[in-house]
Amino acid sequence: SLAAPAIAQSAPKVTWRLTSSFPKSLDTIYGAADVLAKRISEATDGNFQIQVFAGGEIVPGLQAADAAAAGTVEACHTVGYYYWGKDPAWAVAAAVPFSLSARGINAWHYHGGGIDLYNEFLAKQGLVAFPGGNTGVQMGGWFRKEINTVEDLKGLKMRVGGFAGKVMEKLGLVPQQIAGGDIYPALEKGTIDATEWVGPYDDEKLGFYKVAPYYYYPGWWEGGPTVHFMFNKAAYEALPAGYQSLLRTACQSVDANMLQMYDYLNPKALKSLVANGAQLRPFSPEILQACFTAANEVYAELEASNADFAKLWQSIKTFRAENYLWTQVAEYNYDTFMMIQQRNGAL
Amino acid sequence: SLAAPAIAQSAPKVTWRLTSSFPKSLDTIYGAADVLAKRISEATDGNFQIQVFAGGEIVPGLQAADAAAAGTVEACHTVGYYYWGKDPAWAVAAAVPFSLSARGINAWHYHGGGIDLYNEFLAKQGLVAFPGGNTGVQMGGWFRKEINTVEDLKGLKMRVGGFAGKVMEKLGLVPQQIAGGDIYPALEKGTIDATEWVGPYDDEKLGFYKVAPYYYYPGWWEGGPTVHFMFNKAAYEALPAGYQSLLRTACQSVDANMLQMYDYLNPKALKSLVANGAQLRPFSPEILQACFTAANEVYAELEASNADFAKLWQSIKTFRAENYLWTQVAEYNYDTFMMIQQRNGAL
Repeated sequence: SLAAPAIAQSAPKVTWRLTSSFPKSLDTIYGAADVLAKRISEATDGNFQIQVFAGGEIVPGLQAADAAAAGTVEACHTVGYYYWGKDPAWAVAAAVPFSLSARGINAWHYHGGGIDLYNEFLAKQGLVAFPGGNTGVQMGGWFRKEINTVEDLKGLKMRVGGFAGKVMEKLGLVPQQIAGGDIYPALEKGTIDATEWVGPYDDEKLGFYKVAPYYYYPGWWEGGPTVHFMFNKAAYEALPAGYQSLLRTACQSVDANMLQMYDYLNPKALKSLVANGAQLRPFSPEILQACFTAANEVYAELEASNADFAKLWQSIKTFRAENYLWTQVAEYNYDTFMMIQQRNGAL
Repeated sequence: SLAAPAIAQSAPKVTWRLTSSFPKSLDTIYGAADVLAKRISEATDGNFQIQVFAGGEIVPGLQAADAAAAGTVEACHTVGYYYWGKDPAWAVAAAVPFSLSARGINAWHYHGGGIDLYNEFLAKQGLVAFPGGNTGVQMGGWFRKEINTVEDLKGLKMRVGGFAGKVMEKLGLVPQQIAGGDIYPALEKGTIDATEWVGPYDDEKLGFYKVAPYYYYPGWWEGGPTVHFMFNKAAYEALPAGYQSLLRTACQSVDANMLQMYDYLNPKALKSLVANGAQLRPFSPEILQACFTAANEVYAELEASNADFAKLWQSIKTFRAENYLWTQVAEYNYDTFMMIQQRNGAL
């Protein structure tokens, strides 16, 4: 056969479909896939097109990775912990309780070998993934009643996604799986006692403050959750090297961009929520300590029984100790001083 | 004249020269320009090449922006506060004392209008700039003697770059401008009493701990300093739209990547520095408060006398108050809990 001209080989027309796990109403998280598609299209003069579909449009939100692995679509934008039921190892590079903050997990992804380690695991599923967004530390969610002791968690019906429920069960909490649109009525009726969602900006849209005013922090199960772009491995490997490189560059830019968007929007939403009656409450040290202990029990079980989980988690754990040694020096003291000024009205 | 074929218009051969303000020994900061060049080249199949030169190779490090503005080179990688002597407005989007942290300043750059505001100012200099790296909160530097009171700052000869010196002078400190390679001997001989540089990873290479063991934190004058890629405005505007878009995407990816690299490397370097005798010391609340007051005096003067400075600083200031309201909720409480675990040896 005739050799194609060099220019056609290096910049071929490629059209991919990307299924998001998120509804369009989440402009922050859902929007990140649109931003990726736009950047890729612009950089290739429209030769590499990624068509973005919201969760449920062509694939249910929680099956996005399955669809990309099967080649039904070439790409998805999802969170690894949605698939923890297949194997808890899926969750580790996304978020597990008491893991790294947004800055920490990104340092691990990009310079601590995290991207390669996760892809070693995902290759067995037929996928290649790169970080594609972070929300920062999430809030602990909305509670109808105050939670003062570990005892108060017992029997509490809480809508909570993913792997975190497994840890919470150890404390007697009863995790509920409820889709986004169904949470508000369940909370209003008292079918559930509490729900977590994301943080002020996304939470405000769903109006939970009207029916469950106690807004707890921090969301210890999502210290810096990573949303991933996942690609069908064969489709990714069939791309010319230039497109692969561009995709990695664009993913890293979008990963940063989502956190930046949250960091800009969350403060305004928090002010508005508090003005509308949300009651901010910290989880007590006693509760956090009990949750930390429960999480460590789950990790010990999984490290003993699941080699993929152990490899990923031990890599994060090693860096986590170093990371929190360093951040308590300059970062923490700078932030503390600035927060004191904020409270004093001096900023 | 004949119309060029469409493909040639959209992916023309372009070769740019980029002068860095930094020496090659700073693989973190200097390296970011190499990463940008590699990503741009790969994504364009080698059609858009950026040749990177270290500080001093073709242009002195502190004249990088001048060279890009004049069109001597098309691009530079530099820090805005190097040019504060021309006009303090240059410094605001880079770092000024008690400004935003790395996450905060990036939220402002990308979603708070910061990039456009800075470019409004830089357009008058013939430049277009995008964030191209961040170090995180820097350390306060190396001191030959302990600094316990504001009185101890009086007459102290400290090597400190940029705008921060203007604030420190208010406290009686005597800022010294000394190039990187000359700092160690000056510190050893006692010609200067103290120096700031960057943070553990970069500082360790220069060996300051051997001659000035007191390592203070935080570097309140660099809470989240942004390094910028600056482009000759005419050269940037002459690029095809696809290359401009790619350049912006790649800059945002590199901006994130530098911070991620520091966040991964600094903890290891801190451990090593302490093992080698560095003595960690926090600046006292009294000292920080005096520096904050001095900084606010300088800002008040400049806001009254310099419209460009005022526009940029007031935009940051407004967001700064919101940012530190929000971060003291989930982020700060999560980090605090994790740091307690770190100190307890539980991570």
